[in-house]
Amino acid sequence: MKNNNLTDKISFLENKALNLRIDSIRATSKSNSGHPTSCMSAADIVATIFFETLKYDLTNPKNPNNDRFILSKGHAIPVIYSAWKQLGVISDEELLSLREFDSVLEGHPTPRFEYNEAATGSLGQGLAIGIGMALNAKLEKTFNVTDYTTYVLLGDGEIAEGSVWEAAELASFYKLNNLICIVDSNRLGQTGETLDNHNVDKQAAKFKAFGFDTYTIDGHNIQEILSTIEKAKLSKSKPTAIIAKTYKGHGLQSCENKNNFHGKPFKKEEVEKLIEELKKNFSKASSFENQTKYIPTKPTATNALEETFNVNGKETLNIIDINKDTNSKLFEKTETIATRKAYGYALAALGRKNKNIIALDADVKNSTFTEIFEKEHPDKFFQCFISEQSMVGIATGLESRNKIPFAATFAAFLTRAYDQIRMAGIGRNALRLCGSHCGVSIGQDGPSQMGLEDIAMLRAIPNSIILYPSDGVSAYKLVEQMANYHDGISYLRTSRPATPIIYSKDENFEIGGCKVLKQSNSDQVCIIAAGITLHNSLEAYDELQKSKINVSIIDLYSIKPLDYETIKKVSMKSGNKIITVEDHYLQGGIGEAVSSALSKTNITIHQMAVTKLSRSGSPKKLMEYAQIDSKNIIQKVLEII
Amino acid sequence: MKNNNLTDKISFLENKALNLRIDSIRATSKSNSGHPTSCMSAADIVATIFFETLKYDLTNPKNPNNDRFILSKGHAIPVIYSAWKQLGVISDEELLSLREFDSVLEGHPTPRFEYNEAATGSLGQGLAIGIGMALNAKLEKTFNVTDYTTYVLLGDGEIAEGSVWEAAELASFYKLNNLICIVDSNRLGQTGETLDNHNVDKQAAKFKAFGFDTYTIDGHNIQEILSTIEKAKLSKSKPTAIIAKTYKGHGLQSCENKNNFHGKPFKKEEVEKLIEELKKNFSKASSFENQTKYIPTKPTATNALEETFNVNGKETLNIIDINKDTNSKLFEKTETIATRKAYGYALAALGRKNKNIIALDADVKNSTFTEIFEKEHPDKFFQCFISEQSMVGIATGLESRNKIPFAATFAAFLTRAYDQIRMAGIGRNALRLCGSHCGVSIGQDGPSQMGLEDIAMLRAIPNSIILYPSDGVSAYKLVEQMANYHDGISYLRTSRPATPIIYSKDENFEIGGCKVLKQSNSDQVCIIAAGITLHNSLEAYDELQKSKINVSIIDLYSIKPLDYETIKKVSMKSGNKIITVEDHYLQGGIGEAVSSALSKTNITIHQMAVTKLSRSGSPKKLMEYAQIDSKNIIQKVLEII
Repeated sequence: MKNNNLTDKISFLENKALNLRIDSIRATSKSNSGHPTSCMSAADIVATIFFETLKYDLTNPKNPNNDRFILSKGHAIPVIYSAWKQLGVISDEELLSLREFDSVLEGHPTPRFEYNEAATGSLGQGLAIGIGMALNAKLEKTFNVTDYTTYVLLGDGEIAEGSVWEAAELASFYKLNNLICIVDSNRLGQTGETLDNHNVDKQAAKFKAFGFDTYTIDGHNIQEILSTIEKAKLSKSKPTAIIAKTYKGHGLQSCENKNNFHGKPFKKEEVEKLIEELKKNFSKASSFENQTKYIPTKPTATNALEETFNVNGKETLNIIDINKDTNSKLFEKTETIATRKAYGYALAALGRKNKNIIALDADVKNSTFTEIFEKEHPDKFFQCFISEQSMVGIATGLESRNKIPFAATFAAFLTRAYDQIRMAGIGRNALRLCGSHCGVSIGQDGPSQMGLEDIAMLRAIPNSIILYPSDGVSAYKLVEQMANYHDGISYLRTSRPATPIIYSKDENFEIGGCKVLKQSNSDQVCIIAAGITLHNSLEAYDELQKSKINVSIIDLYSIKPLDYETIKKVSMKSGNKIITVEDHYLQGGIGEAVSSALSKTNITIHQMAVTKLSRSGSPKKLMEYAQIDSKNIIQKVLEII
Repeated sequence: MKNNNLTDKISFLENKALNLRIDSIRATSKSNSGHPTSCMSAADIVATIFFETLKYDLTNPKNPNNDRFILSKGHAIPVIYSAWKQLGVISDEELLSLREFDSVLEGHPTPRFEYNEAATGSLGQGLAIGIGMALNAKLEKTFNVTDYTTYVLLGDGEIAEGSVWEAAELASFYKLNNLICIVDSNRLGQTGETLDNHNVDKQAAKFKAFGFDTYTIDGHNIQEILSTIEKAKLSKSKPTAIIAKTYKGHGLQSCENKNNFHGKPFKKEEVEKLIEELKKNFSKASSFENQTKYIPTKPTATNALEETFNVNGKETLNIIDINKDTNSKLFEKTETIATRKAYGYALAALGRKNKNIIALDADVKNSTFTEIFEKEHPDKFFQCFISEQSMVGIATGLESRNKIPFAATFAAFLTRAYDQIRMAGIGRNALRLCGSHCGVSIGQDGPSQMGLEDIAMLRAIPNSIILYPSDGVSAYKLVEQMANYHDGISYLRTSRPATPIIYSKDENFEIGGCKVLKQSNSDQVCIIAAGITLHNSLEAYDELQKSKINVSIIDLYSIKPLDYETIKKVSMKSGNKIITVEDHYLQGGIGEAVSSALSKTNITIHQMAVTKLSRSGSPKKLMEYAQIDSKNIIQKVLEII
């Protein structure tokens, strides 16, 4: 293999780059949509990586020893599909099915095509995902299991996104010398010059200031690309950023380095002529096509050490036994404990059972109680500092490499990462998210710290589940359920205040279930609550009992999916009336979830929720102000029965 | 005034800093919550600004000539309240009401206290807001109306947020030499060392790489702070970042530069002793208290030129007349036009009527059609490149200075700025947001580009309104309604495809209304739709007519607020049955909004919405796949009547 000389190798790669340009044009013209000029600037970079430097088991994209390649500038995906075609992974016919309904080759990368590492297309997200993958390689290397390099290809337009710099800081903090970022700096965004307008030195200076080894190169010079990647692989302690100066539409005079060609496919009837022009402009590369003197190195990767490496990662965990937890006494009915603290204990226990459990936090580990996990499993804990977008992106990267990541911060601050969460949903990444300090019941810190839209936000993610425990036992047990849920994002909503233990330690909590806590033969209304308002409802119950007013009470610990059958059955025995009460905004919360589920019945639903801006004050005072305390519940019951 | 010597001035400011420390401790101990040590690191910086460099009309925080001061590290707000106390704006009694329910002095800044410039407390957001204010100063200066300096005080923990760097890029792009950022680099975050761990040179290098003039200083040396701010004010073309090396808890041996003191008030019984220690440690500052030789310069600002400057900005705009628009013919019933394009035309027309209209976009102006506005009003258009968080933050800053900002990008990408939108909601900032390319009907670009959670997200903001036009006329007219809505965030959802004009140009569209498009005396169900699905519903209507099946149809162009009365009335005449159909996820969308509003009635609601992940494909095919096309609507009608 190694008797090829460098000149031949370069010619071979130049020929591949030419073919990537041609195929990118063909595929986008066929689909009559897509971004051919964004592919053309990246073609030389992609050719060099895919046909020379990438270690890859072509028969198995899930091989844990594969290098990972993330296309952060997702709109250029046709150039990657073209590379897979050239490598024999897909046929020309498949390539030309780009963007068709029945094709897995979507307009932006999604995991429906299993050679795509991550769903991208919302810009600026690839680097954080790459960090997750690179961290995973470091973790696995520690255990002598596997090792690989992670490549991230970014556009110069997208490095305007703060998320890129947020990720860059963490890449250097974690000394990810196994991470290579290449910026395809082609000068032009969708509507004009990018922020840095081809000032590659400025771009390099930014990455340097953020702790990267940096190189500025001619992104159309394959020899330079190749030698720079080789240098990057020798880095001892820093991630590398290669700023590749390129030209959008490189190779075609009509569009090269010109504005107004973003996202515009060429006309079908022009394609043949354009290919001729490309062949003429890259005549050396074109003529190489018929030569045979270069024997390319097929991408290869050693086989997975399946015995020691859990390739699947999606096994059902051994059940963690709360009774055997050293902290078991905290979960006695005589105790009070905040659900956020139970989260920490359960996570630590899970970590004992499965080596793939990873915890992440954003500088609030003593508030979310992720610190309990960290104390026991310091090697499996990643501090993300105050960077929620990176935390979610890193979790996505880890999950795609078969880890089971739990990422926690205040529920309010998960709003910062909503786009990353959305994209993880599209990527089918089973993130486990925990949002603490939900609702007005956090008190004095005021509205900026209150998660009041988190249920709405997380419900609107396909395949997500939303769990909202009211006591330590249910919180503990639901964490385990999350670890075993692999079909989408799971979200645990935890509360700040310590609350009494409601359940015995032997109670089980299934996803999609609920608990009927109070029920009689003469209930006049069914109160549905979760979290802090469940405790308010139980207080109201005791008061109502004194007036001989019976109500049923449901603990809706699983908000999505919702236990429609039980809710319907209980409320039909409760005067066909429901009161929902929640420490969340009315919109998209528990009340709307219940109203929506029961919208075809004649059960009436009275929603009590937060409907106005909160402020600082004691939790008690703020719940009263939001009209979700026990006094208001009692009043509502009296009003409607 | 100027006969004071520098030594006296410094002593005076040191004395003020001591008093800020003392009052921050007193207030947080009294409230038994808050972040005294985060105040103590910032005290010298705050004293220098508030008692020396800030131009401010103490009697009128809204004076447009005031310098603006934004506390990005919002948790340190007690030190600012303490400064206002020292300046006589609030009493000691008011200061000690910190964080109480009836106090406007909340735990993190909100506009309930009108001297707070912005709601902060979710970290990393202040700089973008400051850009908005600094841009406004530049705009006003152009018109010779006013001028001021904008200060932003950041923490070193929060500069881990990508949003800070995203904003930094734009601050230098727009050459904001009137913007001074000071980083209170106190080494410690909530749970430990910050990312840069007191490496102030590294922090300065980052800002330098992002185009700032930078200085690293001793943040407890008032003379240095003062001289550096004076230098910063002389900058000709760059924003300034002053990295002030400080110590958390500076002044008290027990906590200074020590971990585990974040967000922990001191015990009430300790306060007297701590004050004594502070006075001892700052003995020179303390002894200055009784001196009289320094005559402080009271903060002052020239009066607003009210005649030429619209201080209020909240007037009702002259009605823009679509009939007089030069593009009027585009809105004839015979035409088709995308609602996103109508947005551009209406915005341009508004710009002709009011000088305070500003448009912002994130490198998609030819997709959102903000470019139509830009072409007519280039000075009032701000390109934010691919940085949605900054775009929303800048809009917030502009709005707080009485501009009327409209910010647009793909609806999907507004998720990137959800935290900024949430905080603008808390800040009572009347942002006007436009999300284009909603729903699966965008087609081939695939799910990453589809806004399918935007209604859910925006509904869950107090005081927000959600408008979703179905044709060019309603889109045009709703833009005007947004300009006149000052009570919260307004959101316009626009579609990618061109659609037929439904309404005559004389039709009026009120916020909170709806249009009954079809109604008869024998309707068997009421179909409620908006946007693209309204057109699908009208198609279904025509087909159903052929089978003599009558249905009523409502165009729900105002999703929040919802026209409950009309919906109820029409559906009661339509068999007490509603079908909602929307190009949005089921959760938090139109169907849930309607179900929620009608949850106390016996009207049944059948929701048709996107319930699974979409993919690439033609709009027609994707609407069929999501079961929201006319065929599926017909089928649903036949199924339930």
